[in-house]
Amino acid sequence: MLRALKEDLLHDVKSKELRVIVISAEGPVFCSGHDLKELSTQDDVKHHTEVFEVCAEVMTLIQRLPVPVIAKVNGLATAAGCQLVASCDIAVASEKSRFATPGVNIGLFCSTPAVALGRSLPRKVALEMLFTGEPLSAHEALMHGLVSKVVPEDKLEEETMRISRKICESSKSVLALGKATFYRQMAQDLDTAYKITSQVMVDNLTLRDGQEGIEAFIQKRKPVWSHAQDKKK
Amino acid sequence: MLRALKEDLLHDVKSKELRVIVISAEGPVFCSGHDLKELSTQDDVKHHTEVFEVCAEVMTLIQRLPVPVIAKVNGLATAAGCQLVASCDIAVASEKSRFATPGVNIGLFCSTPAVALGRSLPRKVALEMLFTGEPLSAHEALMHGLVSKVVPEDKLEEETMRISRKICESSKSVLALGKATFYRQMAQDLDTAYKITSQVMVDNLTLRDGQEGIEAFIQKRKPVWSHAQDKKK
Amino acid sequence: MLRALKEDLLHDVKSKELRVIVISAEGPVFCSGHDLKELSTQDDVKHHTEVFEVCAEVMTLIQRLPVPVIAKVNGLATAAGCQLVASCDIAVASEKSRFATPGVNIGLFCSTPAVALGRSLPRKVALEMLFTGEPLSAHEALMHGLVSKVVPEDKLEEETMRISRKICESSKSVLALGKATFYRQMAQDLDTAYKITSQVMVDNLTLRDGQEGIEAFIQKRKPVWSHAQDKKK
Repeated sequence: MLRALKEDLLHDVKSKELRVIVISAEGPVFCSGHDLKELSTQDDVKHHTEVFEVCAEVMTLIQRLPVPVIAKVNGLATAAGCQLVASCDIAVASEKSRFATPGVNIGLFCSTPAVALGRSLPRKVALEMLFTGEPLSAHEALMHGLVSKVVPEDKLEEETMRISRKICESSKSVLALGKATFYRQMAQDLDTAYKITSQVMVDNLTLRDGQEGIEAFIQKRKPVWSHAQDKKK
Repeated sequence: MLRALKEDLLHDVKSKELRVIVISAEGPVFCSGHDLKELSTQDDVKHHTEVFEVCAEVMTLIQRLPVPVIAKVNGLATAAGCQLVASCDIAVASEKSRFATPGVNIGLFCSTPAVALGRSLPRKVALEMLFTGEPLSAHEALMHGLVSKVVPEDKLEEETMRISRKICESSKSVLALGKATFYRQMAQDLDTAYKITSQVMVDNLTLRDGQEGIEAFIQKRKPVWSHAQDKKK
Repeated sequence: MLRALKEDLLHDVKSKELRVIVISAEGPVFCSGHDLKELSTQDDVKHHTEVFEVCAEVMTLIQRLPVPVIAKVNGLATAAGCQLVASCDIAVASEKSRFATPGVNIGLFCSTPAVALGRSLPRKVALEMLFTGEPLSAHEALMHGLVSKVVPEDKLEEETMRISRKICESSKSVLALGKATFYRQMAQDLDTAYKITSQVMVDNLTLRDGQEGIEAFIQKRKPVWSHAQDKKK
């Protein structure tokens, strides 16, 4: 499953046509994490190690992709499923959605999900979830920053598509540069972050789509994006 | 007082019977921080240094304890008392509770409380508290992540006990491993955090209670925890 | 404009009379960021570099000033204007205010604003703003920590003045020490942060205004601040 997800995430990633990825599910569960049967074989430490390595690879891959990744959640997201939501760039959830890390119930603390949760939620909220296994409601998830938008269930498709379409109105190369820079600068102190991003702003302006955007703005017309990564000659 | 609190926190810490610590208070004040008379003797820099060192020791000890520490707040938490709430793993507050760092009023900026506040609250909220000394309401504290739950005063005991009982249903050794790992990985970058936690997940599975939990889940029965730190043979 | 703002921020900064800075605007827009015409000249990489360097200088200067800086927002704050709000110590906004980073619309990702946004907002909220260019409402900005207070438009002046007056009741030297220490310790790990701040608490107590504050408290009288940085003899 993790390997299939990884392959799907990487599918056509360099195509100009791929502009945004939406991760969604069918049925009442968004994702409930690892198949516990895979984790039960007592001696197979090697297999367990591989499972968690591939999992971490998929979660960090999301941030490395050149397009925005949206989690569209309509139901329960638990354990590595909750980690998946936390690892996306944007998350839109229906009001009935819930988020939990119930590993403690089966003696397996959600330590890998905690990496993503601890970076998406206030520490106390994350720890109460991890220590008790109890779910956050969609509105609590929004208040605390685990998701970026909550809508009624019958508006979930519409809102996700609205955000996706808005993203598709922009230049792919500009978004790719912006996303990569965002994660890069967040790992730095303030002064280094500004040094990196000031240079990126100048680079962005030399992109074909950077110049096209500003020219179009000044000429009061709609920009025509090339989505290309090359610089304006 | 700080020394007594430290001793209480460490009391029976290795006992299998100790599974959760709740810090609460009697009367309308949860904790109002340092005794200012202790800080007034003009020349006694040595004593002042000791006071703040012991204080920092107690605050950081909370995160190092192998069991979850819950602040149960029913009233006013100010200065080092507000720092104490911010330093706990979980905080449950009654609706009437308030949180403030009023050191500026007496010419002593709450710089040590600011360490805990700055890591629990959005920066602007923390700075407005620190610069003005004015209190957050319980609901503001929840919205901004300083506490993880707010309930009416007459439900405070019930809710705190409910969370505590939920914690007691889990394996002590699993929670201890999870808590220690949480704070350890939070100090690292994303890739290092995943390296650490992927290994911890594998280690968790080899714990006696790790295997018991998964076996019980597959056999659809209640797990019987040993709470022991040894590995399944 | 950035140079004028920088000069204004530094004006009289050492005067005992300067105790708080409020950044506000006239008209329906708080600040809409860079003048795009300045960024369009195709070859002038040198000028672009300078623009973003001065911008970063102003944004980080705010945190280095010895007095609290309040953004008083009544309207739209976009791009570098949104960054300016995020960079202040405190932000008070009217209910009609909105906050956006719409650089993607003109092919220039708001990468420098993202530095300040990523440190003021949950990551998903920041990324949804950056990827879509769509605005946060004032209440969303409060919920997510971008501003520290939201009031009706007709209370904005009153609330900003109330906070400012509260700040003016404190000692300038104590606030200056507290502010500098806050930003310094936030860049450190927990143990180092406590080492730094424990020492600062002891130093604060030796300040003339530190001793005056505690003496006044014990003598149950109003403190009389010197605002001086020297130590009590």
